[in-house]
Amino acid sequence: MKLYDYNGAPNPRRVKIFAAEKDIQLELIQCDLAKGEHKTPEFIVKSPSGKIPVLELDDGRCISESVAICRYLEEIHPEPNLFGSTPYELAYIESRNRHLELELWTQIGISWVNGPIVGRLGRFKQIKEAKESSDKNTGKFYERLNDELAVIQFVAGDRYTVADITLLTAIDFATAMVDLKPDPDLTNLYRWHKEVSERPSSKM
Amino acid sequence: MKLYDYNGAPNPRRVKIFAAEKDIQLELIQCDLAKGEHKTPEFIVKSPSGKIPVLELDDGRCISESVAICRYLEEIHPEPNLFGSTPYELAYIESRNRHLELELWTQIGISWVNGPIVGRLGRFKQIKEAKESSDKNTGKFYERLNDELAVIQFVAGDRYTVADITLLTAIDFATAMVDLKPDPDLTNLYRWHKEVSERPSSKM
Repeated sequence: MKLYDYNGAPNPRRVKIFAAEKDIQLELIQCDLAKGEHKTPEFIVKSPSGKIPVLELDDGRCISESVAICRYLEEIHPEPNLFGSTPYELAYIESRNRHLELELWTQIGISWVNGPIVGRLGRFKQIKEAKESSDKNTGKFYERLNDELAVIQFVAGDRYTVADITLLTAIDFATAMVDLKPDPDLTNLYRWHKEVSERPSSKM
Repeated sequence: MKLYDYNGAPNPRRVKIFAAEKDIQLELIQCDLAKGEHKTPEFIVKSPSGKIPVLELDDGRCISESVAICRYLEEIHPEPNLFGSTPYELAYIESRNRHLELELWTQIGISWVNGPIVGRLGRFKQIKEAKESSDKNTGKFYERLNDELAVIQFVAGDRYTVADITLLTAIDFATAMVDLKPDPDLTNLYRWHKEVSERPSSKM
């Protein structure tokens, strides 16, 4: 299987960490976002939204969207389980993952597209007020996570799941590429980040 | 099972349609958003993000997030299948559903919070430029859907799935509550909307 990737991009990293946890080997193909390779007609056939990551199966069929790709990998390689085993656990882990995606990742994304790095590219109209609002929402969500991680070891409870990968990639991207490093006072969040970063998969 | 609902809110509607397709009976409990009942300490225990819908199981455990609730219902009541059966189909339907959530629903949401109805409540700072941008993105996504629905019957191919519920609730909300009714020239999108709206579940 081939994974269309771009070094440093957070969503392909989610899939690479997920695959590493399951010891699945993927052939990485660089799709150069700076050159617009994700928007060519050939690539749109693979990924209708013109985004990476894309998983290309050996028969040529393609799957876009990081969580959809991870679910496919979970189905074909169930262990170690990262999405949940029972109906309740499957739903609970998905709800935790969605909180992160819809309330944290979306805000980091708004700060990113309205921030200085994307601003210098000149491709998007910058909305300063939108960034002020999303910066604030990100900070509040970090505080919520810090409170939650005072009583749970991992994002979805007592074991590592796909939701931890979502949070790790969000924080690492927000720290490195946006000016949204969590406040040092959020010690439970930092405890979690240190533990998860020590897993070999996090080097991806 | 109880579903915390608010008449007219689109996310509980997604779950109600999904349950109706499977003929699952849910006891509906109104959670009055206008009175802030979703932000009380008691409700935050059920739903850490302070949002509806929430499914409360008979043993008191709760699941938040519409898609997570739907996945739980799919697990306990597998037929008719709405999320996919094979690994590829599961991933493909999820990718289609996520395109709608991340590229359409998020934009409708930005137009909603920066639009006149929410504006009159005075709870959020209105960003006019953000609404102009999300209005435009919504229109572009409708055009993409119209092109896709020229060659497929349903959002994820030749059968009705959870992704059709996501799109139906998005368009109905955007039409009724935001000024984002699809352009009448998008005839494939209207053909799809008519067919899906004729299903009894759509009356939810």
